[in-house]
Amino acid sequence: MSAYAEMSREELEKVYEGLRGEFEAVKAQGLNLDMSRGKPSMEQLDLSSGLLDAVSSRDYIDEEEQVDVRNYGVLAGLHRARELFSPIFDLPADQVVIGGNSSLNLMYDMVEKAIVHGVYGASRPWGSYGKIKFLCPVPGYDRHFAITQHFGMEMIPIPMDQNGPDMDLVEQLVEGDHFVKGIWCVPKYSNPTGITYSDEVVRRIAALKPKADDFRIFWDNAYCIHEFEEEGDTLSSIMAYAREYGTEDLVYLFASTSKVTFPGSGIAAFGGSKSNVDYMLSLLGTQTIGYDKINQLRHIRFLRDYDGMREHMKKHAALIAPRFHLVLDTLRRELTGLAEWTEPKGGYFVAVDVPEGCAKRTVALCKEAGVVLTGAGATYPYGSDPADRNIRIAPTYPTLEELGQAIRLFCLCAKLAAAEKMLGK
Amino acid sequence: MSAYAEMSREELEKVYEGLRGEFEAVKAQGLNLDMSRGKPSMEQLDLSSGLLDAVSSRDYIDEEEQVDVRNYGVLAGLHRARELFSPIFDLPADQVVIGGNSSLNLMYDMVEKAIVHGVYGASRPWGSYGKIKFLCPVPGYDRHFAITQHFGMEMIPIPMDQNGPDMDLVEQLVEGDHFVKGIWCVPKYSNPTGITYSDEVVRRIAALKPKADDFRIFWDNAYCIHEFEEEGDTLSSIMAYAREYGTEDLVYLFASTSKVTFPGSGIAAFGGSKSNVDYMLSLLGTQTIGYDKINQLRHIRFLRDYDGMREHMKKHAALIAPRFHLVLDTLRRELTGLAEWTEPKGGYFVAVDVPEGCAKRTVALCKEAGVVLTGAGATYPYGSDPADRNIRIAPTYPTLEELGQAIRLFCLCAKLAAAEKMLGK
Repeated sequence: MSAYAEMSREELEKVYEGLRGEFEAVKAQGLNLDMSRGKPSMEQLDLSSGLLDAVSSRDYIDEEEQVDVRNYGVLAGLHRARELFSPIFDLPADQVVIGGNSSLNLMYDMVEKAIVHGVYGASRPWGSYGKIKFLCPVPGYDRHFAITQHFGMEMIPIPMDQNGPDMDLVEQLVEGDHFVKGIWCVPKYSNPTGITYSDEVVRRIAALKPKADDFRIFWDNAYCIHEFEEEGDTLSSIMAYAREYGTEDLVYLFASTSKVTFPGSGIAAFGGSKSNVDYMLSLLGTQTIGYDKINQLRHIRFLRDYDGMREHMKKHAALIAPRFHLVLDTLRRELTGLAEWTEPKGGYFVAVDVPEGCAKRTVALCKEAGVVLTGAGATYPYGSDPADRNIRIAPTYPTLEELGQAIRLFCLCAKLAAAEKMLGK
Repeated sequence: MSAYAEMSREELEKVYEGLRGEFEAVKAQGLNLDMSRGKPSMEQLDLSSGLLDAVSSRDYIDEEEQVDVRNYGVLAGLHRARELFSPIFDLPADQVVIGGNSSLNLMYDMVEKAIVHGVYGASRPWGSYGKIKFLCPVPGYDRHFAITQHFGMEMIPIPMDQNGPDMDLVEQLVEGDHFVKGIWCVPKYSNPTGITYSDEVVRRIAALKPKADDFRIFWDNAYCIHEFEEEGDTLSSIMAYAREYGTEDLVYLFASTSKVTFPGSGIAAFGGSKSNVDYMLSLLGTQTIGYDKINQLRHIRFLRDYDGMREHMKKHAALIAPRFHLVLDTLRRELTGLAEWTEPKGGYFVAVDVPEGCAKRTVALCKEAGVVLTGAGATYPYGSDPADRNIRIAPTYPTLEELGQAIRLFCLCAKLAAAEKMLGK
């Protein structure tokens, strides 16, 4: 809050009055905008409209496997759909399972199975230990935290920096406490900070020697190919390190096409060691007869293969980049010296740290003036950000014009909240 | 086994030799047929091929609600999709939730939520009671039993007759034991017997006064509109009775279009009281951001509404009826006096009771000669049919010609197994 801290009370009162006036003026415009969720824009959806024509009443046989995709069968998914995710996971296609339309649902299912049945090779289910613990790098993804909370696990926040989670703390907890059963990771363009785990962090995660014999790393690579800058980040392969350290069974990998094609109508994937995958398939068979193969075939035909998918992502980048640039330029212009934020090269979010104790108020002011943000605190377990600083900005959905209005209002509200705080209003 | 019981040993030896010779002759043909699962035939799939053209790159806006079905949102499902199941459940559309491609998965999810969180209004989760019990009408659906087994519940078999489960026993257990938390029901064209619960049985189920305050009826109406005879069975509305008895919260209803359109690419539905549905939506929101609305829109456009769906089912009936008639005619001709079976008017199965102790052997003989049946015992909890009598026949998938071969072989094997048994071979 240095910018305001250097002012006299009189000067700050004047600034506050100015901000308050601006706020009332914007509020009078009656905005109605939403920057709360990582939702693709209409223009992005249009990029994948061809997916809707990729399987018709004349061509429902998978060209490679000659499977009639309209009937039951093929629980693990069509081979070419599994190949689509093989380079992302750094795993052979037969160690990839294609799920339904939601990788979140797959993660939920994997947690449930660990609790009810235990993980592969474990002597007993997670559920038999009473209170178990899950590491939650913060700020993080609210829907991950909701899953761990649903299943009654204790969530331990792990501070993140620009290289990923604090690995000294992770090692200490994982290697010292057998009640620690898992960790959530969004390793590339992390939700919400947009940082990518460093090579050193990925290596140390793969090298973990857990005290528990049933610890699992939930590697949610949601933004694996989602760079919007020409030179994106490089994420090291956790499976390559795991092979080196003999820890392949510790890693569960997840990805989806939710932000490649259509959110809610994409395909999700799970990957892991042969043992993990075989074990999971045996348990998935109790839950469903199979996932939607017609939609898998649509994706194979529309995206072709991994390279085709990467090409497709460049079209998204062209639409997303200007939105992020607008947000980052505005933040730089308006909040330098008052707040801190990340400058991601991909993903769906910018995380802004407003002055301590000002996040809730900033979000409330935005709402009052017609702009909905992700709730303050949502990026922390139990919705509780101890410093009340972190706010997640999701720039993709509004039009550029709307986004400009929304982010200017956001900056105004952050400044107003900070001034109020300094003045004790 | 009366037909064989009346023969002298000498006569029976002669019959046995004849059957054995026939069996070897069929075996030499090298058949390779599958009557194991309730799978629609290719011709049935063709009836719904239009579904694949129902949403294209030019028309992805839901006409009624003006929702762009390509993006996130609308967790409970499109309104017209909910309306599709409203008459089936005898519930208003806002008490219907559209899920993914599998009603089995929805049932699994509902059981999981009851175990982890408890049902609506309950003081504690099912999981907190230690060993809990689930009533399983037998013969029944193997995948139901697999779910209860996955979650470690004790399964109590309840004998079925042509009116449904033995209600005296159900009432005694449900009203006397607070560890009894649920019952599986396939109330219409039951899997595998094909019978439909009588009005009296439906009424008594709705009138249950469970000892547990968190008992639930899993009403899996999988074959709700699946008659193949012109005059099908009538199933009474459990919700109508539940409203009369004030037990609406006890009933969870399930259905899907898996055997209306495409298995694996249909839409599934859950219905229940307002309280149950609101509660479930709040928990489903932790598991997924939403289900596949594009596929919901395809179904709305292709099937139009409930009446359109009923019309569509007549086309299935025209394809299925001859298959069932062939099976039933062959059973009548070959096994009268030796085995017993049901004569369903709809659904996907015929359940045959061969002589006691002969089911496993019959299935093994069929397999030896190239015809795969559902495993003997699969229609009972833990795969164990105490009398080793019940075999499920699934006539829909093979062509008529293949089905003729398969069912004749089945009869031959049943007779051979019975003769072996009588002769102590």
